[in-house]
Amino acid sequence: MSKIKLGMVGGGKGSFIGEVHRMAARLDDRYELVAGALSADAKTAEESALNLNLDKSRSYPSYETMAEVESSLESGIDVVAIVTPNHLHAKIAEIFLRRGIHVICDKPLTTNLDDAEYLASIVKESGLVFAVTYNYSGYPMVRQAREMIQNNDLGGIRAVQIEYAQDWLATGIENTGHKQALWRTNPEKAGMGGAIGDIGTHAFHLSEFVTGLRVRRLLADLDSFVPGRELDDNASILMEYTNGAKAMLWVSQIAAGKENGLKIRIYGSNAGLEWSQENPNFLKFSPLGESPRTLSRGGPSAGALAGNATRIPSGHPEGFIEGFANIYSDCADLIVAYKTSAKIESLVPAVNDGIRGMQFIETAVKSSKSGAAWLTFGS
Amino acid sequence: MSKIKLGMVGGGKGSFIGEVHRMAARLDDRYELVAGALSADAKTAEESALNLNLDKSRSYPSYETMAEVESSLESGIDVVAIVTPNHLHAKIAEIFLRRGIHVICDKPLTTNLDDAEYLASIVKESGLVFAVTYNYSGYPMVRQAREMIQNNDLGGIRAVQIEYAQDWLATGIENTGHKQALWRTNPEKAGMGGAIGDIGTHAFHLSEFVTGLRVRRLLADLDSFVPGRELDDNASILMEYTNGAKAMLWVSQIAAGKENGLKIRIYGSNAGLEWSQENPNFLKFSPLGESPRTLSRGGPSAGALAGNATRIPSGHPEGFIEGFANIYSDCADLIVAYKTSAKIESLVPAVNDGIRGMQFIETAVKSSKSGAAWLTFGS
Amino acid sequence: MSKIKLGMVGGGKGSFIGEVHRMAARLDDRYELVAGALSADAKTAEESALNLNLDKSRSYPSYETMAEVESSLESGIDVVAIVTPNHLHAKIAEIFLRRGIHVICDKPLTTNLDDAEYLASIVKESGLVFAVTYNYSGYPMVRQAREMIQNNDLGGIRAVQIEYAQDWLATGIENTGHKQALWRTNPEKAGMGGAIGDIGTHAFHLSEFVTGLRVRRLLADLDSFVPGRELDDNASILMEYTNGAKAMLWVSQIAAGKENGLKIRIYGSNAGLEWSQENPNFLKFSPLGESPRTLSRGGPSAGALAGNATRIPSGHPEGFIEGFANIYSDCADLIVAYKTSAKIESLVPAVNDGIRGMQFIETAVKSSKSGAAWLTFGS
Amino acid sequence: MSKIKLGMVGGGKGSFIGEVHRMAARLDDRYELVAGALSADAKTAEESALNLNLDKSRSYPSYETMAEVESSLESGIDVVAIVTPNHLHAKIAEIFLRRGIHVICDKPLTTNLDDAEYLASIVKESGLVFAVTYNYSGYPMVRQAREMIQNNDLGGIRAVQIEYAQDWLATGIENTGHKQALWRTNPEKAGMGGAIGDIGTHAFHLSEFVTGLRVRRLLADLDSFVPGRELDDNASILMEYTNGAKAMLWVSQIAAGKENGLKIRIYGSNAGLEWSQENPNFLKFSPLGESPRTLSRGGPSAGALAGNATRIPSGHPEGFIEGFANIYSDCADLIVAYKTSAKIESLVPAVNDGIRGMQFIETAVKSSKSGAAWLTFGS
Repeated sequence: MSKIKLGMVGGGKGSFIGEVHRMAARLDDRYELVAGALSADAKTAEESALNLNLDKSRSYPSYETMAEVESSLESGIDVVAIVTPNHLHAKIAEIFLRRGIHVICDKPLTTNLDDAEYLASIVKESGLVFAVTYNYSGYPMVRQAREMIQNNDLGGIRAVQIEYAQDWLATGIENTGHKQALWRTNPEKAGMGGAIGDIGTHAFHLSEFVTGLRVRRLLADLDSFVPGRELDDNASILMEYTNGAKAMLWVSQIAAGKENGLKIRIYGSNAGLEWSQENPNFLKFSPLGESPRTLSRGGPSAGALAGNATRIPSGHPEGFIEGFANIYSDCADLIVAYKTSAKIESLVPAVNDGIRGMQFIETAVKSSKSGAAWLTFGS
Repeated sequence: MSKIKLGMVGGGKGSFIGEVHRMAARLDDRYELVAGALSADAKTAEESALNLNLDKSRSYPSYETMAEVESSLESGIDVVAIVTPNHLHAKIAEIFLRRGIHVICDKPLTTNLDDAEYLASIVKESGLVFAVTYNYSGYPMVRQAREMIQNNDLGGIRAVQIEYAQDWLATGIENTGHKQALWRTNPEKAGMGGAIGDIGTHAFHLSEFVTGLRVRRLLADLDSFVPGRELDDNASILMEYTNGAKAMLWVSQIAAGKENGLKIRIYGSNAGLEWSQENPNFLKFSPLGESPRTLSRGGPSAGALAGNATRIPSGHPEGFIEGFANIYSDCADLIVAYKTSAKIESLVPAVNDGIRGMQFIETAVKSSKSGAAWLTFGS
Repeated sequence: MSKIKLGMVGGGKGSFIGEVHRMAARLDDRYELVAGALSADAKTAEESALNLNLDKSRSYPSYETMAEVESSLESGIDVVAIVTPNHLHAKIAEIFLRRGIHVICDKPLTTNLDDAEYLASIVKESGLVFAVTYNYSGYPMVRQAREMIQNNDLGGIRAVQIEYAQDWLATGIENTGHKQALWRTNPEKAGMGGAIGDIGTHAFHLSEFVTGLRVRRLLADLDSFVPGRELDDNASILMEYTNGAKAMLWVSQIAAGKENGLKIRIYGSNAGLEWSQENPNFLKFSPLGESPRTLSRGGPSAGALAGNATRIPSGHPEGFIEGFANIYSDCADLIVAYKTSAKIESLVPAVNDGIRGMQFIETAVKSSKSGAAWLTFGS
Repeated sequence: MSKIKLGMVGGGKGSFIGEVHRMAARLDDRYELVAGALSADAKTAEESALNLNLDKSRSYPSYETMAEVESSLESGIDVVAIVTPNHLHAKIAEIFLRRGIHVICDKPLTTNLDDAEYLASIVKESGLVFAVTYNYSGYPMVRQAREMIQNNDLGGIRAVQIEYAQDWLATGIENTGHKQALWRTNPEKAGMGGAIGDIGTHAFHLSEFVTGLRVRRLLADLDSFVPGRELDDNASILMEYTNGAKAMLWVSQIAAGKENGLKIRIYGSNAGLEWSQENPNFLKFSPLGESPRTLSRGGPSAGALAGNATRIPSGHPEGFIEGFANIYSDCADLIVAYKTSAKIESLVPAVNDGIRGMQFIETAVKSSKSGAAWLTFGS
């Protein structure tokens, strides 16, 4: 089985997420990175390409050129990974889609909903594979939770508690030239959402992915606690799902002591479930009237979804990279199926999930500006 | 030092909280239970008194009689503990106060704010000791957290996360004759708050006690998920403190798998703190830019407030009863000081804390009825 | 039901364990402390008695006088608690037993096996209640573990891992005048065992109490890591039970970071169990081929033994004092039964458990001196 | 930088460890798998090679042929990974070493000490890179522990507690045809050690790697609890290091509820350290007289060794595969250095570590047969 040819836009030296995408692509050996426009800075692009053993001729000065050339090669790239700051996602994606190249795009999808919807129309038109890397849905025990809820192990969902808390923006590091912080706190590059865009969209997607529910309306109170910061760094959000279940969602990048604290807890009429990203191989399952059980990845209670996303036995921890790699592997399945026009079910977050993420950001910002009013989702 | 003479109203056979009060009173040997009106049911009252070795003559058929007789005895009770359902608190308290007897009253203070304010005026007039058993403030590591925040170990407080979640009302057990559930879900006995009254007031008090901040306004969304239930069993609340800090407060009695999950996390500009009631001997302290530390009750980092509330060395867990007993011991100090007209500082929750609890309930209910509008606290 | 009259020898001001015994006696209101020989130092004795509200006439200058006088009083003490250093236990116990007074004695029983066996003969002759406060057997979830093993929930026991580790003797604090450390590291007062006597006997008792097995032989390697210390402060012990199961027992008082780390894990042919003293309200139960469950005190899987030893609902942590109080309450049952010559089953550690503790110490010391040879238990 | 050419012997379909080696080799993109003798079964070998996209001509029917052909190719493999059952390691390694090909060999090194020593002489003679995959030494926080101990953060080491417990052999699954169990419980393929060889050697290596100490003597008691099993499935071992520190080591594959429970705790005169493989991103550090701290991979207290072995930020868990990949990356450094005759320091476990592992097994077996006598290590 020949490998899928992968190109990358962004992700040059110093990028965190670019390297994560590459490791994720490598892990199951289904991709081969063959081309890149790795940086807007020519020198950085060149050095990065060298480090990655890219053929010099396929290290491009711009994504436009890359799209043009690669689509003309007999064995040009099948798929491009877009790992730039948010404001470039849509533009780049469109160019590659129009050239017939599949897209794996970092989140959030764009910087505003209009762009997202426009992009979705392009995707639809193209018929190509388009994935948004809400990577936390790639964790096996997250999928286990989804499967258990689909199987009605929890009964009707009533209450959901979600949080995604970090502390790396607890001080104004964007003022010290910290590159990652700089664009994430800049509305022109990040869009209208700060923490809610950077990490809140992950949490939002996770909640819908796991519960299988859809948010009907939400209410948000956004704050910027660090002096001078324009975008939110702490958000208190209430949500209501279409079945009447209620959620509280806390998003923060100023929570001292929190490293990457994504956590979800779901309470149904029959049982509860808890999962925490920082100890991701376990899922706590609490049926009413019984002692709670700790399900482990690869352990005796794991179902098919978790099993398919598991590489090594229980007790041998898998982590963030493995979860991310599950998204890449699922994309590989989609790309292979595309070639044969096969229809397959997939858990990969798609452009519509990207749109919901943008709706989440916009509705939250709008609600907060209206004094934390309940707003219909996407209104 | 002679013991303080204690009477009790309510708390007969089958009561959970009555026995807790008695154990708390006993632990440090500063009280002697000598009188009671332990039940409205005469037989239950009698049997309960027998079990407790009360002198038969001091087991009263009604609290009115008890107040009258005890206040006329030379060595009548110094203080009465009121552990009845909520709707009786105010009435009983007034009677004893008017007879010159100190009061230790269970929470919430009353069933509505008017009664609470009226009661406060009686307390003030009497000059007597009046304690409300927000017992979680008696835990040593809760007091440690308070002391650290007073010492500015956290810097300015920005965000607070509080939750108090249980699952014992996840099904309609009030319909099966469960006594504790019955009155707690009945507006006539419990007041206008269900979960928010029963446990939410604890959480609310804890948040102000620990942070030293005062809530300025709040927004609440209350639900009754169990069919037919009149009062809230799940609440999503946002709060703003006078310094601009924001809190999220989750209160639930339908969270499958939660036994008595009271937890508070506080994030300041310099550090974070986390405490959980179910593992109460520890406090997680996370200064920005340093590895987090686990402070233990009795351990090397414990300060004066925790030290004063500690009986046994670190590693020997203290629990709920010991925390409750700290409230009783602090009350004993107040009662002793009263006798000598000494002025002492005290951490004991007083009638004003009881009023804030009622304001919390009323504001939350009102906000929820207004579609989760922000309301000024106590408005 | 009138209260049992309790006297105490030792336990004056500054004593940790004396106050623990008193709180334990108080908690369930079945004892009344009425007499004491609280300290060999007359002034300390007097002050301590005053603090405890003892009648002046019943604060004795010596335990001999106390035994003589109390046994002659019409309402003299029923039972004496002995909380002195180890070398006095036997002598004091004998005097009270010969006067017809029941005994609750701290552990280890004596400083050598001969004394222990002599004492046992006195106990037997007297027919009186004699308890040794291996208090960890009073924890509800320890009793739950015992019950589950008796019910064969684990299948045949194969392997046991026990540890009791502290760090308070990690430096030579006995040389700084630390009173508790001083006698515990002095062979004349502590006997031939240091850590193994002070805490190892607890662990040893716990292992037999929970598993229901008896140790057949053991092998020990004792060390004194702190320079100049005569008695062991770290011990590595292997044990074999009569059914062929194997145990490893680690005892240490020099394990930096350990406060009171008593932990037991038991593995049978069908399931495993884990319990840790520092988080005592939970028991981890792992049936082979199933997800592990966390049983909680008061929770849905708790059986009769745990239930009987439980005061408050799950989620409301009980701790060390409550566990200790269970031993006192069980003793109260025995004393009441004695009065009516009733026969009752009891979980209270008795003189024979005390003897096994001494055998444990002596066998361990002898084995270590023989280069860690296997020795038949008690040989 | 061109990739290192990797061959593999063993690791065909159904192998756990073969796939782990391949993922580890892929993760950092420094290796290219180009050849294999993946199975003794021709059909399995062929299918496995196909799945792995090996060139058909480089899928060999035997490792002898593979060594011969690859060493004759201009761009033949640089290094071979040996992932067969233990009894084949030495033979295969020798053949490749004699052809000038570096070796990465799974553990334990061989089935007996003589073979190990012979192999070591071949390695020495060859001057080639030879790594033994004691992969747990690749975890960043394990290396952090090593660095802290080297920096004397713990003071003099006194006591070490190590355990490696699993439950997958708690029943006689080798009798049901379970392939992994079959050879591991067969002395002819596994050697004289069962659990002590399969997992005990990992624990042993870890203890010396982290502490920097060397074991001087040990005492072992080995059991086979599952009826009919020839090799040990539970082992209780005491060890003494050359500095006088003492260790207890528990190895078990019958501990119900344990998945892959490798844990090490080290106590020095100034501080303690604890690390657990199932939650590997954290290290607990307990300086005497201070509150314990939780160090995280990538967090504020991480030093150079951990930093070099870290790919993604704290809070984003790395796991077993990443730790394993660190061994592969370090080997890549060694292979690159070899080409330029550069001398570099390396943490990669080498043939001498493999020999110590065999000495551990043999000494433990011998000691157990002598009734758990202390034996000089390697005697």
